[in-house]
Amino acid sequence: MDTSHDTTQLLRRRWNQLNARLAVENIDGLVITGGSDMEYLTGYKAMPLERITALVALAPDADNPEPPKPTLYVPELERARVADNPEIFDLEGWDDSVNPVELVAARLDKSRRVAVSNDMWSIHVLGLQALLTQKDPTSSITTISEAFGGLRSIKSVEERNLMVKVGSLADVVATQLQQGEIPLVGRSEAQVAEDIASRLLAAGHERVEFVIVASGPNSASPHHHPGDRIIQANEMVLCDFGGKYMGYCSDTTRCVFTGPIPDEIAEAYEALHRAQAAGVSAAQPGSPLAEVDHASRGVLTEAGYGDYFVHRTGHGIGVQVHEEPYVTGQTSVTIEPGHTFSVEPGIYIDGKWGMRLEDIVVVNADGPQRCNNSPHELISVEA
Amino acid sequence: MDTSHDTTQLLRRRWNQLNARLAVENIDGLVITGGSDMEYLTGYKAMPLERITALVALAPDADNPEPPKPTLYVPELERARVADNPEIFDLEGWDDSVNPVELVAARLDKSRRVAVSNDMWSIHVLGLQALLTQKDPTSSITTISEAFGGLRSIKSVEERNLMVKVGSLADVVATQLQQGEIPLVGRSEAQVAEDIASRLLAAGHERVEFVIVASGPNSASPHHHPGDRIIQANEMVLCDFGGKYMGYCSDTTRCVFTGPIPDEIAEAYEALHRAQAAGVSAAQPGSPLAEVDHASRGVLTEAGYGDYFVHRTGHGIGVQVHEEPYVTGQTSVTIEPGHTFSVEPGIYIDGKWGMRLEDIVVVNADGPQRCNNSPHELISVEA
Repeated sequence: MDTSHDTTQLLRRRWNQLNARLAVENIDGLVITGGSDMEYLTGYKAMPLERITALVALAPDADNPEPPKPTLYVPELERARVADNPEIFDLEGWDDSVNPVELVAARLDKSRRVAVSNDMWSIHVLGLQALLTQKDPTSSITTISEAFGGLRSIKSVEERNLMVKVGSLADVVATQLQQGEIPLVGRSEAQVAEDIASRLLAAGHERVEFVIVASGPNSASPHHHPGDRIIQANEMVLCDFGGKYMGYCSDTTRCVFTGPIPDEIAEAYEALHRAQAAGVSAAQPGSPLAEVDHASRGVLTEAGYGDYFVHRTGHGIGVQVHEEPYVTGQTSVTIEPGHTFSVEPGIYIDGKWGMRLEDIVVVNADGPQRCNNSPHELISVEA
Repeated sequence: MDTSHDTTQLLRRRWNQLNARLAVENIDGLVITGGSDMEYLTGYKAMPLERITALVALAPDADNPEPPKPTLYVPELERARVADNPEIFDLEGWDDSVNPVELVAARLDKSRRVAVSNDMWSIHVLGLQALLTQKDPTSSITTISEAFGGLRSIKSVEERNLMVKVGSLADVVATQLQQGEIPLVGRSEAQVAEDIASRLLAAGHERVEFVIVASGPNSASPHHHPGDRIIQANEMVLCDFGGKYMGYCSDTTRCVFTGPIPDEIAEAYEALHRAQAAGVSAAQPGSPLAEVDHASRGVLTEAGYGDYFVHRTGHGIGVQVHEEPYVTGQTSVTIEPGHTFSVEPGIYIDGKWGMRLEDIVVVNADGPQRCNNSPHELISVEA
């Protein structure tokens, strides 16, 4: 990301959206340490080392409707790596003779309710907590997730368009898989995974994020790592893959069967197909997000496969493959326009086979929109 | 790592050492989330995703001189990745319908003083803190670093031998650099970095951890990323590199000059050389670790270069390149036999040149031992 006019405008829009959110949620101060949130707000990708990089922002308040500029604290010896953008943030280096958490605490002087990155290190957050409560025993620290359900979880229309676009790039490869253009039988899972990775790039992704190829009994392990197993005729091949385009991620899962589909599998897949459609339909603005999980899980439970659906129904996605909101039966999030998440029920029969069907869904004011539109049926490909 | 008899013996020795430490430091319970500490204690390398993997151990106490077996909580869908080792830990999967932090809190039922991984995510540590203090307001959470200065900071004699061995592998490449066997002038920093990486493997490392090649004015940036800059005659080339052997890391820095050495640089290097030797000599068991920083910094300050030494004097090293103890002027650690850290003073003149001299030092009962022994002089290599 450069510091061109366009980038500055984009960052400014993100800050405006964030400041509005801080005001609503009554957060006085914000501490972001490394990771995607920092890159999203500053364009800077911090080194994930023990020397902390911290972005500290104060919320607007009655006295200061225009909040002061945020400060990016970087280790002095990494300062040269930052593309400075003085319209967006002040840059301050700290050297090894100071405790950077004390700098952060001092900047949060008047903040009583502070939200921090979900993945801020315990050594930093406990240190900050000690300093803040020492000064004001009524101050408290919460996480961005608990304070307002993730900083990037509501996507702008511009971001939703990018999610639809990157989804269509993944669909190119999904369709090739379903049309039998990707040789399977006789090749190892790892070879097919490499082939899919090349095709993701050829379709227009700037980089590949992950490829799962799980064949036969391996398809029953949801996070299977593609290995040396040679794909056989007459078995399930589960492919789950995604890449990045303009900073946003795709993620889709399709299964194919290398031969005529046995009744047992056709029957299960029919339930899976309905479960996925039910989850997508439940993604209505104003509804509880947990309804998406209930809808998919309900179909599978009713069809007798409930015990074999061993994971949540989905996860938010955007600049990271996994981000908030997470689609579980326990989440208290209410669906809003801009929420973007996967709907991916699965059935996994240990030692035999597994199946999963996954689309990314963006929620618009008028309802859910699928980013993935390759065929949803289980397709038999030539052996 | 397999679960052979040898591995189990190794893990058991580590646990015995740890349990002794917990008892001394009055820690009742320990929570390790992902990272090198978990691999060190169980052999399992957890996925660094939002679903938490947590190793929970209870300390021995008066009633239970033999502590109960630790429990490794893993996301159900990653359970198949764990090489079970029932002699060392119990394995428990958790699925997406439960809050895993509640499982951890329940296991710590009677623990009043709990130590957690330095890099445990804030969302988990704040959640755990809330649950523990709700049950017992006098309970408290600290970090492993604060409780006992790092779980892996004291190396066994076996580990020290490995550090000496891996250091000698890095020295092979440092010596090649100093003997002019690695072409520099006319090649880009990135090309030389790639060459050094190949040589680290050829020397016997199992993998390369990092290579910095910083030439001319770039050498003034301590964490420079090797790029397209073509190395010229008559300039400084700073090379800082390391790899892994049998799970332990090397890390050494040597500088060469591509031509006759100007007086200004020879003079500065003479001070740097003395500063590094002074730091190594100060690494005596029983001395404050801060003395190592003071010793190196003192020499440079007296010679007029104090303002140009912009970082700490060193860092601990072992299964990670950077780990505890950190060698700063502020550390309160007392040096013990088994401590292993870098001594790496530097001088950085913005826009002109930089220099650094780095060895890894293991501390034995009878004093410091260098793991790196290639020449410490600044050597002029043919242009």
